[in-house]
Amino acid sequence: MSEKLSGNILVTGTSRGIGLELVRQLVQQVGLETHLYACCRKPDESNAQPLRDLAAQYPGKISIIKLDMSDEDSILAAVQAVSEEIGDGGLNLLINNAAINRPESPAPLSATEKKHMMDVYETNVVGPFLLAKMFLPLLQRAAEKHSPENDNGDQMSCRRSAIINVSTLISSIEKCPETFSMAQMYPYRTSKTALNMLTRCQAEDFKTHKILVAAIHPGWVRTDMGGEQAPVTTQDSVLGMLQLMSLLSDKDCGKLLDRQGNPIPW
Amino acid sequence: MSEKLSGNILVTGTSRGIGLELVRQLVQQVGLETHLYACCRKPDESNAQPLRDLAAQYPGKISIIKLDMSDEDSILAAVQAVSEEIGDGGLNLLINNAAINRPESPAPLSATEKKHMMDVYETNVVGPFLLAKMFLPLLQRAAEKHSPENDNGDQMSCRRSAIINVSTLISSIEKCPETFSMAQMYPYRTSKTALNMLTRCQAEDFKTHKILVAAIHPGWVRTDMGGEQAPVTTQDSVLGMLQLMSLLSDKDCGKLLDRQGNPIPW
Ligand SMILES: NC(=O)c1ccc[n+]([C@@H]2O[C@H](COP(=O)([O-])OP(=O)(O)OC[C@H]3O[C@@H](n4cnc5c(N)ncnc54)[C@H](OP(=O)(O)O)[C@@H]3O)[C@@H](O)[C@H]2O)c1
Ligand SMILES: NC(=O)c1ccc[n+]([C@@H]2O[C@H](COP(=O)([O-])OP(=O)(O)OC[C@H]3O[C@@H](n4cnc5c(N)ncnc54)[C@H](OP(=O)(O)O)[C@@H]3O)[C@@H](O)[C@H]2O)c1
Repeated sequence: MSEKLSGNILVTGTSRGIGLELVRQLVQQVGLETHLYACCRKPDESNAQPLRDLAAQYPGKISIIKLDMSDEDSILAAVQAVSEEIGDGGLNLLINNAAINRPESPAPLSATEKKHMMDVYETNVVGPFLLAKMFLPLLQRAAEKHSPENDNGDQMSCRRSAIINVSTLISSIEKCPETFSMAQMYPYRTSKTALNMLTRCQAEDFKTHKILVAAIHPGWVRTDMGGEQAPVTTQDSVLGMLQLMSLLSDKDCGKLLDRQGNPIPW
Repeated sequence: MSEKLSGNILVTGTSRGIGLELVRQLVQQVGLETHLYACCRKPDESNAQPLRDLAAQYPGKISIIKLDMSDEDSILAAVQAVSEEIGDGGLNLLINNAAINRPESPAPLSATEKKHMMDVYETNVVGPFLLAKMFLPLLQRAAEKHSPENDNGDQMSCRRSAIINVSTLISSIEKCPETFSMAQMYPYRTSKTALNMLTRCQAEDFKTHKILVAAIHPGWVRTDMGGEQAPVTTQDSVLGMLQLMSLLSDKDCGKLLDRQGNPIPW
């Protein structure tokens, strides 16, 4: 039986796509004791208007936080801003959603430069690495304040303290022979595979603190990144992801799951 | 039955450790028609003296090529220098051995900075990516000149045309729970996992050209990187790796293998 997500929840990359929809559905379903930190690269630009509208619609529920995942100073400033707002509280759920795919799809080898490899890794892996490292004290505090989950003996959950790294099916090395021809994307693939290893390392590293860490594949979703042919709407993708997050427990720690909860091989 | 490696063979990171031993054993076992390109970051410095001595001992067999894997211009210059020397020939075997591990072992999260993540990825993944991309025409030429391998119907081999990426057991996401506590190394782990994905992508991408691509774990080896406690000598590690390379064929393409040829799970 799933219990709604709650507490202090932070999502990156919320100007559009899956990130914006995560904030939209979260704000609709969470209770009074929940606060959302919606991170966005350029909160004052026109691109963030839908997010600003959403925040205005739910006064006091959403804090928009300026955050560029490729900029260490920006990450530090965002962590400080969130820490001040949270005060004595902890961070219950960190969703690393922001990511880029360079060069433009289908991104064959011939079009792929060093800068693409470095930039994609910086945003998709090093950003989430730093954000988790800097938020570790707040995640630990959330885990300490929250009593163990349920009578099954489970210790971990996304209500207590968790990091969700948004990965992808095409991060799977095992499945590469099936997926390569439709999406070569060397920089994106290598970055998301590295994100899976990061997820597994964090799961091992933080389990003593009772912080759950998992990676989720949202499906092939109709966004700027997914393109118009993608079969899944942001609504359906996020519905599934949030339902899954509300169900995650100890056994899921360190896994890569699709949004139905099925494990994807590494 | 294994046939010796032959043709034009390039190895990166040959100033010391496994790379130097690869050149030493290769030059001893290969025949007249073989030439070695021993790449090294600073060929004129004292650190490269053992390599220079080796080259002097086998006149005309080893070309020392200046190559810094973290510097795109240096990679381009090295590829040009090798291409000129090879002339109408092809490159039969490219061994991506050079790599770094930062910060110093045991490299816990608390000691790991953004710069470590970026630098390690640049040298361990982006360098091999660029080198393979730039050498692709020479690898293709080698594959075209060489007739299919044997009567088993095998098309690919390290004698015909191949890329070997030197990976590690601790690149395995599956085995992370077993290996994490003794070697946290977030930057190194994520880079080598990404290198495995690169290997698998290249295997898919280049199979039409009959270029074999595989990743090999050399064992835990007594080098500057492996440390004094490592149980395997460079001699034994390289003996195994070269024996394995001489045996690789179509079925091994896109795999991560230990030096005995056993597959390591992703
Ligand atoms: N769509 C799919 O089919 C699909 C499939 C598998 C996995 N995923 C994953 O799902 C997640 C969301 O993807 P999406 O389809 O919603 O992508 P999207 O529509 O391209 O949106 C990407 C979001 O990330 C933000 N972002 C990019 N770089 C950033 C940076 N340096 N700092 C902060 N924010 C940054 C963007 O902000 P700006 O508006 O400022 O650019 C935007 O809000 C990603 O992790 C993606 O890899 C997507
Ligand atoms: N040793 C082990 O236990 C072990 C285990 C698993 C995998 N491996 C892998 O085996 C390979 C060789 O490791 P090793 O133990 O021989 O390491 P090592 O003793 O530290 O030697 C590393 C070599 O890489 C070169 N190198 C580093 N950065 C470079 C750059 N930017 N450009 C060009 N060359 C560069 C070094 O050159 P300089 O002398 O100029 O620094 C040196 O020749 C690596 O891929 C490593 O990840 C090693």
